[in-house]
Amino acid sequence: MMKKQGITKLLNVWILMKVMGILLVILSGFMLTSLIVAFYYHESALPIVYSAIITAITGGVLAFIGNRHNNKNIGKREGYTIVTLTWVIISVFGSLPFMFSGAIPGFTNAFFETMSGFTTTGSSVLTDIESVAKNILYWRAMTHWIGGMGIIVLTVAVLPFLGIGGMQLLIAEMPGIAPDKLHPRITATAKRFWGIYLILTLVEILLLWAGEMNLFDSVCHAFATMATGGFSTKNDSIAGFMPYSQYVIIVFMILAGTNFTLHYFTLHGQFKKVIKNEEFRTYLVIILVITLALTFGLITIRHSGIESAFRDSLFTVVSILTTTGFVTADYILWPVFLWILIAALMFIGGSAGSTGGGVKIIRHLLLLKNSWIELKRTIHPAAIIPVKYGGKSIGQQVIFNVMAFFLIYILIFSFGVIIMALLGLDFETSVGASIASLGNIGPGIGGVGPVENYAFIPPPGKWILSFLMLLGRLELFTVLIIFSPAFWKK
Amino acid sequence: MMKKQGITKLLNVWILMKVMGILLVILSGFMLTSLIVAFYYHESALPIVYSAIITAITGGVLAFIGNRHNNKNIGKREGYTIVTLTWVIISVFGSLPFMFSGAIPGFTNAFFETMSGFTTTGSSVLTDIESVAKNILYWRAMTHWIGGMGIIVLTVAVLPFLGIGGMQLLIAEMPGIAPDKLHPRITATAKRFWGIYLILTLVEILLLWAGEMNLFDSVCHAFATMATGGFSTKNDSIAGFMPYSQYVIIVFMILAGTNFTLHYFTLHGQFKKVIKNEEFRTYLVIILVITLALTFGLITIRHSGIESAFRDSLFTVVSILTTTGFVTADYILWPVFLWILIAALMFIGGSAGSTGGGVKIIRHLLLLKNSWIELKRTIHPAAIIPVKYGGKSIGQQVIFNVMAFFLIYILIFSFGVIIMALLGLDFETSVGASIASLGNIGPGIGGVGPVENYAFIPPPGKWILSFLMLLGRLELFTVLIIFSPAFWKK
Repeated sequence: MMKKQGITKLLNVWILMKVMGILLVILSGFMLTSLIVAFYYHESALPIVYSAIITAITGGVLAFIGNRHNNKNIGKREGYTIVTLTWVIISVFGSLPFMFSGAIPGFTNAFFETMSGFTTTGSSVLTDIESVAKNILYWRAMTHWIGGMGIIVLTVAVLPFLGIGGMQLLIAEMPGIAPDKLHPRITATAKRFWGIYLILTLVEILLLWAGEMNLFDSVCHAFATMATGGFSTKNDSIAGFMPYSQYVIIVFMILAGTNFTLHYFTLHGQFKKVIKNEEFRTYLVIILVITLALTFGLITIRHSGIESAFRDSLFTVVSILTTTGFVTADYILWPVFLWILIAALMFIGGSAGSTGGGVKIIRHLLLLKNSWIELKRTIHPAAIIPVKYGGKSIGQQVIFNVMAFFLIYILIFSFGVIIMALLGLDFETSVGASIASLGNIGPGIGGVGPVENYAFIPPPGKWILSFLMLLGRLELFTVLIIFSPAFWKK
Repeated sequence: MMKKQGITKLLNVWILMKVMGILLVILSGFMLTSLIVAFYYHESALPIVYSAIITAITGGVLAFIGNRHNNKNIGKREGYTIVTLTWVIISVFGSLPFMFSGAIPGFTNAFFETMSGFTTTGSSVLTDIESVAKNILYWRAMTHWIGGMGIIVLTVAVLPFLGIGGMQLLIAEMPGIAPDKLHPRITATAKRFWGIYLILTLVEILLLWAGEMNLFDSVCHAFATMATGGFSTKNDSIAGFMPYSQYVIIVFMILAGTNFTLHYFTLHGQFKKVIKNEEFRTYLVIILVITLALTFGLITIRHSGIESAFRDSLFTVVSILTTTGFVTADYILWPVFLWILIAALMFIGGSAGSTGGGVKIIRHLLLLKNSWIELKRTIHPAAIIPVKYGGKSIGQQVIFNVMAFFLIYILIFSFGVIIMALLGLDFETSVGASIASLGNIGPGIGGVGPVENYAFIPPPGKWILSFLMLLGRLELFTVLIIFSPAFWKK
């Protein structure tokens, strides 16, 4: 009893139990949608049923216990813990269908796959995807889609108000948010964004279905696209599909990697705001420039056809930049100076306020602008020269946050590389696995290249990479802060 | 005439001519010391004589012209330009002995070798060092030693007062410097540091000479050690020498990579200040920890003898960390997880105020401390929590400078990697060449590993790498600032 009291003093565990409980019940609801696939394809429904029952009962018990105690007292501590714990707990229970179906028997592998799903990474341990039951593949794609929904809430409701790595910039741009009365507006914004997410997913399903894909493949790929996840239902990812499907996926990857605020503006006819958005313009310029460079390289060196060279280049650039991770070409076989451009994209990431992961384009923009201005500041040390973004001066504190974020990102990436090398991976694979996990991309370079998978990584490596995915997805600080003693001090 | 007036309005070129002229005359004096070696070994003195005459005459003419005009007006613009131009000009004229002797016939190669010398990098294009005349090898080592002297002036007189990347911290620790009357004290400090540099060089020469090395080898290796350069007179660097010589070099590499202020304190019996110095302690801890890890790895995996495993580990760690680049073992043949630790050291560098290059330990210390504190700041956004170093609070502006420095460093490194890949090098070699040049180390990883050389790099690559050496050696901003339009605005 003494110990329990100690914990509850530090943290209101009842509110945690209640929230986790409710989330697990909702998760079991999502799981049950797999039954439609199981029935349609005459597959065994038992793995999903067992998983859903266990998840629902655990959730119900947790919520019941949590609800019987004082659960009103929610503070920063509970907030942070809930965010991180959510991704861990749903990854534990979300892995049940993989284990019960026998698709991925071991817990380490099943947890890795599920964490990869919920963090919208898309790294897989499956060596033969097409041999897995369709309802399980549907659940696999669903983990992406749920993860994407989670990220939208996080983007709107958590990150901006924590001032994590400059994400407070999002508030300024967000529709209808006034600093005086935040909560109702946050809920409204989250709902709007979910609406956009849902609509875009539906449109993509229809467009893919209109092509060669059946409804099952269309749904799974749309889930994985809009969440910038990358799980496919095919062993060769998107390579086997016709150009039409590939172009549809390209368009929706671009949309998924765009700040959802801009979609909101578009729906309301405020096109000027969209066109003027600096991050969005940079995003398009990066896609254009690197695509043209790769297309030119592939045509001149590998004598590819112009259309296929362009399509493979565009697809790969968009897939890696948005951190989706779908594949149409094995870029590792391209000359080093072509795939090194793709490797460079892995460090950039999607737009803030999108479902894309990574460092994010806005942070790079601020860092580059600040680096340039730092030269000016060295010349005129007394002058205060602020970084400008979107026509406004950005406070030095925001730049400071962004720099600290990026440095910690690089530090964690480096640790990842060293640990992977310690586990026996070669240099390129260590680099690739670390950045592909931390950036929530999926395919990396070396032994974890686009046509490879993560099955061969030793178990401790899979746990480390799962942790990197979590860190990257939750913008580092949300997770790291829990390990800080200051966080737990009265 | 109009154009000339335009330039002189922008920049007092006369003072530049005068300073460059004087420096070239001094350089020719240093060149002539090679004649002692030439006479002793009965080698042709002509290459050195021709080089010295051309250098001296050019210098004399420049100084004469510069002296006839107004050369009093020295501002920031002239200061920065002089620093960067110095390294470029002396590398141009310093390459003459290599070309005239036929040791390195082409200008690109000769310039690369000389820039590598003066920046104390130690990357070489020579494929058979031992076939080169001894007086030329002596000149090669001398370029290191001169470069080291240059860095000492830069550390004392230029960087701290420009506030480049937190180097203003050096002022606080520097002996006898009061902010009210800087100039006479700077000269005094520079002279003291040069005295320490000279004494340590002499002691190392004697200690090496006391071993198996002849006077020539002792002098050349002492020059290369104290400057943290890395040019050797042997094809297999230090590998062929007895353990005694290797240990002597290890000790002096450690001393060369230490802040010279601490040597000054030691000479004045202020040991407490030395022991309490945070950067120095971190420096020793890094050496100790990585050496033990590598020793353990080599003994268990490669079944090396304990002493030789320890010696190779210690030598390699110290050589890379201090950015010297001497070699006793081909670490590329070690398992990836061992040489990746060495690759990680390449991003750290020596101490501030030493002749070592790289990012510098103090910057990493400040960055790590700030990253840790950033978590605290996220928890208490209103609180101002400063980084502490040496018991004092460090202003946020200094931390800001350091962060900007490191980010630009990483940016330039990344560009270096991409350009090297564009020139056809493989991934590891591109990474190795970029960091080994920018960090002024010499040996990298991949095709530019410890037993390789830079002869095979295509000419444009050699120019880019030379530029990286210059950037790294002059702490980035000193060079970059010249390319900033704001610098040239009235």
